[in-house]
Amino acid sequence: MTISPLAPKNFPDLPVINGVRFSSGAAGVRYKDRTDVMLVELAEGTSVAGVFTRSSTRSAPVRDCQAKMGQGPGRAAILVNSGNSNAFTGSAGEDSVAAICAAVVDAMSIDAGRVFTASTGVIGERLPHDRITAKISDLVETLDHDGIKGAAQAIMTTDTFPKGATAEVVIDGKTVKIAGIAKGSGMVAPDMATMLVYIFTDAKISEPALQALLGALTDQTFNCITVDSDTSTSDSLMIAATGASGVDCTDSAGFTQALHGVMLDLAHQVVRDGEGATKFVEVRVSGAASDAEARQVGLSIANSPLVKTAVAGEDPNWGRIVMAVGKSGAQADRDRLTIKFGDITVAENGWVSPNYTEEAGAAYMKQESLVIGVDLGIGGGLGSIWTCDLTHGYITINADYRS
Amino acid sequence: MTISPLAPKNFPDLPVINGVRFSSGAAGVRYKDRTDVMLVELAEGTSVAGVFTRSSTRSAPVRDCQAKMGQGPGRAAILVNSGNSNAFTGSAGEDSVAAICAAVVDAMSIDAGRVFTASTGVIGERLPHDRITAKISDLVETLDHDGIKGAAQAIMTTDTFPKGATAEVVIDGKTVKIAGIAKGSGMVAPDMATMLVYIFTDAKISEPALQALLGALTDQTFNCITVDSDTSTSDSLMIAATGASGVDCTDSAGFTQALHGVMLDLAHQVVRDGEGATKFVEVRVSGAASDAEARQVGLSIANSPLVKTAVAGEDPNWGRIVMAVGKSGAQADRDRLTIKFGDITVAENGWVSPNYTEEAGAAYMKQESLVIGVDLGIGGGLGSIWTCDLTHGYITINADYRS
Repeated sequence: MTISPLAPKNFPDLPVINGVRFSSGAAGVRYKDRTDVMLVELAEGTSVAGVFTRSSTRSAPVRDCQAKMGQGPGRAAILVNSGNSNAFTGSAGEDSVAAICAAVVDAMSIDAGRVFTASTGVIGERLPHDRITAKISDLVETLDHDGIKGAAQAIMTTDTFPKGATAEVVIDGKTVKIAGIAKGSGMVAPDMATMLVYIFTDAKISEPALQALLGALTDQTFNCITVDSDTSTSDSLMIAATGASGVDCTDSAGFTQALHGVMLDLAHQVVRDGEGATKFVEVRVSGAASDAEARQVGLSIANSPLVKTAVAGEDPNWGRIVMAVGKSGAQADRDRLTIKFGDITVAENGWVSPNYTEEAGAAYMKQESLVIGVDLGIGGGLGSIWTCDLTHGYITINADYRS
Repeated sequence: MTISPLAPKNFPDLPVINGVRFSSGAAGVRYKDRTDVMLVELAEGTSVAGVFTRSSTRSAPVRDCQAKMGQGPGRAAILVNSGNSNAFTGSAGEDSVAAICAAVVDAMSIDAGRVFTASTGVIGERLPHDRITAKISDLVETLDHDGIKGAAQAIMTTDTFPKGATAEVVIDGKTVKIAGIAKGSGMVAPDMATMLVYIFTDAKISEPALQALLGALTDQTFNCITVDSDTSTSDSLMIAATGASGVDCTDSAGFTQALHGVMLDLAHQVVRDGEGATKFVEVRVSGAASDAEARQVGLSIANSPLVKTAVAGEDPNWGRIVMAVGKSGAQADRDRLTIKFGDITVAENGWVSPNYTEEAGAAYMKQESLVIGVDLGIGGGLGSIWTCDLTHGYITINADYRS
């Protein structure tokens, strides 16, 4: 598979997070000649929090993780496989989760309520969980503080590059580290999309405080991206705080900001790896009646197939943006609407801007990263949504993903 | 442009509707070497009703038509151009509508409140209305009871075939005739989409009764189709009842049924001409908590890019249907959900059906017309949505529609 033209140059150099060890391996769940399973061990005292898909047909591992939230702190393990999502597999799905968790409990002498799993890949096919359980002793033996990049690779499905991000923040003279990995490139829309995200930090913070922080930051990051408006049955975002730094980060603005940065970076990487994507687009909405309406307009534009194909064709077809504003359901008024491509004012006062030229618009659209600005001129609501274009590549990938 | 593989074999033989005359011509609004303007004259005593896009950025002609509803019965005229939608063109948009209406008033000695216009095509470019007004005397001179096919051709934009439908119903021994035409093939979603639809009948019915009937039937027909989830700024659906049959059709079940048939036929033709479409799909939802939730699930499936690309690839990827049910927001339960391809039960009781084979599913998907059945097993709500697949053809058409 060709690497997305929007991929970052390199996988970042992620720091060791004290209290976290990783391993990965090839269990042969579906793919050949590549790793497809990762194991993470979290030391005694670790707080864990998670946000999961709201799909009513969510997978067995998602339901299991949700039931286990809020029981820490304590030692914990995360086991993830790619290739098969174990979603819509009836009671066999629950059986597979139970079998994997039991094997991890045995191999690591860990509490059953602290083993979290996730599965990503094809829906509706029975997970061959015996291939995974057969690898667990190998995975436990090879746990390593430096194994995070291998873990990021093992959880990929249609991703064209592994995704990682990091930040450090100094609080009271001591350094707190954050490192995160993610996978996801299609079936991606707000409410968590087909994404798996795992973030690790040596911050000290209680589980309830960590859960509240994660939820708030998710609304500003992963819930503001969309590739194709489709939402997965398997989305899972987890954060583990080992406390090894000794720094209490509860209500720390510095820590919040650093974590926001890591989450936004990972969210943008998911969009940059959007299936078939050739353009990275920020839709920046202001002047809405409320932040919620700004978001509504942003999503209407970002999910519009006609806007996305115009971006793919480098066509400055701002009429389609007017259309998408109009269909959003948010309060809008033709004569108060302003549309910008980057710094170029395209439309204002109900019509094309007198200084706008088609040449300037067409030149702007050739850029790899675009900002579509929309000011509704109604109120103070604002928000950004990040997305990519809709290309022949998306059709090619998805018209024969399974066959 | 290649004609859609889903097109009907022929344009139907539409009957003369007494009291209606048509003409069409080439005004050169945008296209060369084709007709792009139609004029319809409606005789004294005609009732007119209309349903229009709810877009907040709807076009000047749409706003003008809306303001003129409910002032009949009486003589009337409809003038439509293709090539330019006169949408988001500031106050110049209103000026163009006024100029066209004034020219029709002059040429036909018709009341200003009874001249209805529509424009379809590119958004945001000034309508060269003088090219249209220059043709009006020609159009008036060539008005003809038999001109409906020419009118259907003149209003096409990216359509690959003209759309017409007809029905007759005998009431109290007398025949009532209905004939309709439509255009639309992209930017098509419920709430009227990029469609222009004009229906003519010699039924006798008051304007308020006609308006109520049109609204109710639109919810069951044109508001149940989607090509790409995008909604136009120009959608207009109008019906004119001349009363020439002398048959009062108020509250007539026979007339309602016949009109429903014509509207559904035209709506299906719009989907069959969906940009790049190679498959016609009915999503039939039952067992929902309410009809509204059935519609919500149907739209979630019909608008899902992953479902639409699977259909394009003839891939019986029912997991994506599970995904789309899950993200719809409607009440659903994995273990009560049943999914069918035509008569083939694919999934039930929370998993793939024991009798389902991938071969049977793959063979079914090769058909040109598909029925995806979803029973939620919750309540008595039901509804159908009609859509098409998402193909390379859609990308090709829309990534360089304007340039």
